[in-house]
Amino acid sequence: MMALPHIPYSPVRYSDETMLERSKTFYALMNQRRSVRFISPEPVPREVIDNVIHTAGTGPSGAHTEPWTFVVVSDTEIKHQIRLIVEEEEEMNYRQRMGEKWVNDLSRLRTNWIKEYLDVAPYLVLIFKQTYGILPNGKKKTHYYNEISVSISCGILLAALQNAGLVTVTSTPLNCGPQLRLLLKRPANEKLLMLLPVGYPASDATVPDLKRKPLDEIMVHV
Amino acid sequence: MMALPHIPYSPVRYSDETMLERSKTFYALMNQRRSVRFISPEPVPREVIDNVIHTAGTGPSGAHTEPWTFVVVSDTEIKHQIRLIVEEEEEMNYRQRMGEKWVNDLSRLRTNWIKEYLDVAPYLVLIFKQTYGILPNGKKKTHYYNEISVSISCGILLAALQNAGLVTVTSTPLNCGPQLRLLLKRPANEKLLMLLPVGYPASDATVPDLKRKPLDEIMVHV
Repeated sequence: MMALPHIPYSPVRYSDETMLERSKTFYALMNQRRSVRFISPEPVPREVIDNVIHTAGTGPSGAHTEPWTFVVVSDTEIKHQIRLIVEEEEEMNYRQRMGEKWVNDLSRLRTNWIKEYLDVAPYLVLIFKQTYGILPNGKKKTHYYNEISVSISCGILLAALQNAGLVTVTSTPLNCGPQLRLLLKRPANEKLLMLLPVGYPASDATVPDLKRKPLDEIMVHV
Repeated sequence: MMALPHIPYSPVRYSDETMLERSKTFYALMNQRRSVRFISPEPVPREVIDNVIHTAGTGPSGAHTEPWTFVVVSDTEIKHQIRLIVEEEEEMNYRQRMGEKWVNDLSRLRTNWIKEYLDVAPYLVLIFKQTYGILPNGKKKTHYYNEISVSISCGILLAALQNAGLVTVTSTPLNCGPQLRLLLKRPANEKLLMLLPVGYPASDATVPDLKRKPLDEIMVHV
């Protein structure tokens, strides 16, 4: 493959004071983010969702493969079918598959297999990783580090949602991938990685009273 | 484990116009981000890095395990030791381990095993995933989805760096994890996931002339 031409890159350069201020303000904004399981049915402008997904697409990826597909579902009937699939599998996960420890670890977050938000949220965003690509000649193209790349992109998506004043909860619906892929008619090279309900928080939304680790428990300076 | 108390959650609510404006502005900001391999040696205020890492720590994680450790290296000698380890392994990766296709796919980005930025960048951020935790009784605590969680956190970190006007390149140094873990004296439950050099772009920095996929190639609306 031919080397791409390189072009100069000189982004905006901020003063020390401005950097400090910007980094502090952005931390304050992101620190207000919480995983929210109670989402309002109120409609959200579609263009905001487009911008958020476009933002997620700016993430880096192994060898610039951009191995992500974001399926945005607003159709009421399809949302309901997604709910049926997820709740059926999740009930089995909780009752049989997950083991007492996982169920126990989750109990303090008061999560269970009832996922009302799947009907209620104006949008469900299903994030698929493309485990390989298809070359013009029909052969498979390896997508290196596709799970890490798509997860990084999801992190940028979460930042974009938070910035817009929307909420979500990252869920990884165990064992639902194949059924959801078929429901949404996604090709065989795409595997469901995450499912995010997106909207405004419900007016009576609550979140578990969790704290985050302080900086000195997550950072080591050498 | 006891259920945590739940508390009301009612974040800022923006008008439609404000949301649109914010989502557009944030997309424009993130879309300027590029992976940069030419980093200036100029010092960067340490407090900015602290804020960026703190921001990364706001990410969601499976059962709120927060399974990440960010090792920020500014010591010149340790940066150099990291470079020696990475370049030795990367040369073997390129020459022997990666296979012609991966080397070929990377060649258009003009990357190779010489990583000058590891000496030059004012900071190296090594992101470790904690594959398990240690309970007060000394037993292992499972960290569900730790790789996805830490990768999401890295996405938020990239957003925070971009917002502050700093650059990086996400690298996943193949086979270097164990040596770097020992060099940095990290415990056995931590595995290196990514290594990010962080700083201002060099004044003569260039990037490959890549385009990103348009929105309709990454998003499907149902």
